[in-house]
Amino acid sequence: MDAEVFDSMGRLILESRYTNKGIDGIIFMTSSLQKTSIQEHRQQFPGLAHKAYFNFGGQGTMPRSALEAIINAHEYIQQVGPFSVEVNAWIAQQVASLRRAIARELATTPATITLTENVTAGCNIVLWGINWQRGDRLLMTDCEHPGIIAIVGEIARRFGVEVAVCPILATLNEGDPVGVIEQHLTPNTRLVVLSHLLWNTGQVLPLAEIVATCHDYPSQQPVRVLVDAAQSVGSLPLNLPELKVDYYAFTGHKWLCGPPGVGGLYIRQEVFEELQPTFIGWRGINTDERGRPDRWKEDGRKFEVATSACPEYEGLRTAIATHQQWGTKQERYQRLCQLSAYLWERLAQIEGIKCLKNSPPEAGLVSFQITKDIPCDRQGRSEADRERRERTSRLVKSLEERGFLLRTIAHPNCIRACVHYLTLPEEIDRLIAEIKQLSD
Amino acid sequence: MDAEVFDSMGRLILESRYTNKGIDGIIFMTSSLQKTSIQEHRQQFPGLAHKAYFNFGGQGTMPRSALEAIINAHEYIQQVGPFSVEVNAWIAQQVASLRRAIARELATTPATITLTENVTAGCNIVLWGINWQRGDRLLMTDCEHPGIIAIVGEIARRFGVEVAVCPILATLNEGDPVGVIEQHLTPNTRLVVLSHLLWNTGQVLPLAEIVATCHDYPSQQPVRVLVDAAQSVGSLPLNLPELKVDYYAFTGHKWLCGPPGVGGLYIRQEVFEELQPTFIGWRGINTDERGRPDRWKEDGRKFEVATSACPEYEGLRTAIATHQQWGTKQERYQRLCQLSAYLWERLAQIEGIKCLKNSPPEAGLVSFQITKDIPCDRQGRSEADRERRERTSRLVKSLEERGFLLRTIAHPNCIRACVHYLTLPEEIDRLIAEIKQLSD
Repeated sequence: MDAEVFDSMGRLILESRYTNKGIDGIIFMTSSLQKTSIQEHRQQFPGLAHKAYFNFGGQGTMPRSALEAIINAHEYIQQVGPFSVEVNAWIAQQVASLRRAIARELATTPATITLTENVTAGCNIVLWGINWQRGDRLLMTDCEHPGIIAIVGEIARRFGVEVAVCPILATLNEGDPVGVIEQHLTPNTRLVVLSHLLWNTGQVLPLAEIVATCHDYPSQQPVRVLVDAAQSVGSLPLNLPELKVDYYAFTGHKWLCGPPGVGGLYIRQEVFEELQPTFIGWRGINTDERGRPDRWKEDGRKFEVATSACPEYEGLRTAIATHQQWGTKQERYQRLCQLSAYLWERLAQIEGIKCLKNSPPEAGLVSFQITKDIPCDRQGRSEADRERRERTSRLVKSLEERGFLLRTIAHPNCIRACVHYLTLPEEIDRLIAEIKQLSD
Repeated sequence: MDAEVFDSMGRLILESRYTNKGIDGIIFMTSSLQKTSIQEHRQQFPGLAHKAYFNFGGQGTMPRSALEAIINAHEYIQQVGPFSVEVNAWIAQQVASLRRAIARELATTPATITLTENVTAGCNIVLWGINWQRGDRLLMTDCEHPGIIAIVGEIARRFGVEVAVCPILATLNEGDPVGVIEQHLTPNTRLVVLSHLLWNTGQVLPLAEIVATCHDYPSQQPVRVLVDAAQSVGSLPLNLPELKVDYYAFTGHKWLCGPPGVGGLYIRQEVFEELQPTFIGWRGINTDERGRPDRWKEDGRKFEVATSACPEYEGLRTAIATHQQWGTKQERYQRLCQLSAYLWERLAQIEGIKCLKNSPPEAGLVSFQITKDIPCDRQGRSEADRERRERTSRLVKSLEERGFLLRTIAHPNCIRACVHYLTLPEEIDRLIAEIKQLSD
């Protein structure tokens, strides 16, 4: 890692001539073309102050501009009058603006975007929108979020759908995720559910290849792919139409640093008609002159329900614009990867700590375990497991008390540190020093 | 209407010795026991300033305190650190506080309350949570909201459920809503869907009697009652357990004057187990040590999904507390009814205007029509209808331009004016004067 990296604006993002020993070699330089230095840019994020923030995969640090946009929206509505013709027209415009801003980030068209409350809502829309028949099969990975597992369980119970789980966790460092998924497809498979960026291990799955494999599989009905994109939207530089993924559910409050309660779902244009709305409301329908519903909306709004926290929509739109002020999604991703590689390398050097991945991460999630031995005299395996969990939990709590925000993951039992393009190398150095001290 | 009305604090709410001609006789008096005068109280609602607000049935005017609570919540989360152990515990507390505040307003226990995004979400939870069988029957009234009609249509299509619609609109001034519903029950009826306070005509249905009739009906399976309570929560003084209603879906952003995007669903304890969650997420499940879902939550959270705009929760909680500072729900309802009676009486006196109800409203919705004749020479009925709609729409637009906020209703074609306990008699007088002038 000795190359100097310049972004498209001729800016030296991170001169990565660091040594294995410390930060001495790390220099952030700005060229005359730089729009905003990261130090200056970070001033807009109150959540980054007075702590070292490594929880972007849980929730992002919302920029002050986003809070101001939320406040302004609330105030505007009250000033002009809620539910007035004027305010309703304004809200419709703002909703359209957010849809455009999201579509631009994902390199797609606004019509393919449904606005939702969160990533799980998007997954629910897809999972309940398929006309399941008894004996249909759904394939998911062993790294999906408990919320998604619970939806799938209820789908299986209600419709007599078979559920298969394929071992993706084991492909983190070796093995072939595409092959694993292909081996688990059967002629009655209708849907594959997976995460693009695994929330527990930080692995990035080769989505384009997986989608192509599913689409090419000679199933009785086309095999569709639903992605839980909780960790990938706002961190990976995405072009959804190019990936050919069918359904991509995401949230705005993690890597995009928007407020909680606003997310979205991308539906590939070619499969739009297949999906039926389940949770339904006035936003998804057109009405006739007498106010009776007469047909679904013909774009992503078809799956939207009713009144949402629309001022928070303004918050997300503004958060996206704030990131763009600093750099393109490619520039942000590039910096993020350099930082996560640095964190990964430094963590791997701590005695008693082991990173789950044995190569640098391809995104911002770095998961690691405490490897110190558990005295195993008469303790059973479950007791040793519990002790490991408690140890993990204690370390995260101690770090939080010292101003370092990370989280535990239950399976595999580990600690997850997330870096964003907003992270500073010196924050990583301080974290490393703290972990060293605490795990001594 | 010559009685003086005192509330439980000994306060003279509205001395209603007004004449039919004007406001001369209207006096608002306060006794020494009054907590806050309405004039003083209204200062907390920026949405009431510089206009005359009659749209509470669309959206309430949010108090400044609620916006401050939203801002404080956002700032607190950023300051302490999103997703930290500390913030997550704080959010759990705030969510519990909101649940308690709502439960108190509805005279029920927190365990019976599911927090939702809006009233439609609550209706969806119930409608998709029943294990429908082909041939089951659902009965709804002819006054339900288009969003609800659309859900019912999709339920009918997917599960082969029969849908019957009973004529409640015609019972506004005569007839017996309980009788109408009873006549439409059949042995295969499983669910009755109705609004407590009809959004179009302002009629309050005798809910306790309807529920008793449904519960007593000798159907093959128990007949459950789902209420769209968009207009009744925050305007009627409710005791849900006493009504024995099964499901009661509501929103916080109308009569409770909370922010958009927060609502709830009451589920009667005795029928809680019957209902299955459909849209599912981490909030509704318990997980085992390895993070796998192992059972549903055992209270209203069972039907909650995932990350919501939790700062807005604080907004609703604060809005409810703000109303309570002025008076109890009975006191607020009493004042609201006096004001709506006044509005109804004054409207009825305008030539060319007809109130849909021919007796004073039992809540805050007052719907009226322009009765001026449409020249019917060669115009067909549909053209005359269109002319009537355009006329209605023009009047509402003209009123909005002059600072009076009301809305049109498509069926029956009318204008809806809503008064809350926050309304001033002089606002009503100004509205009456404006309508007189505009409809001349």
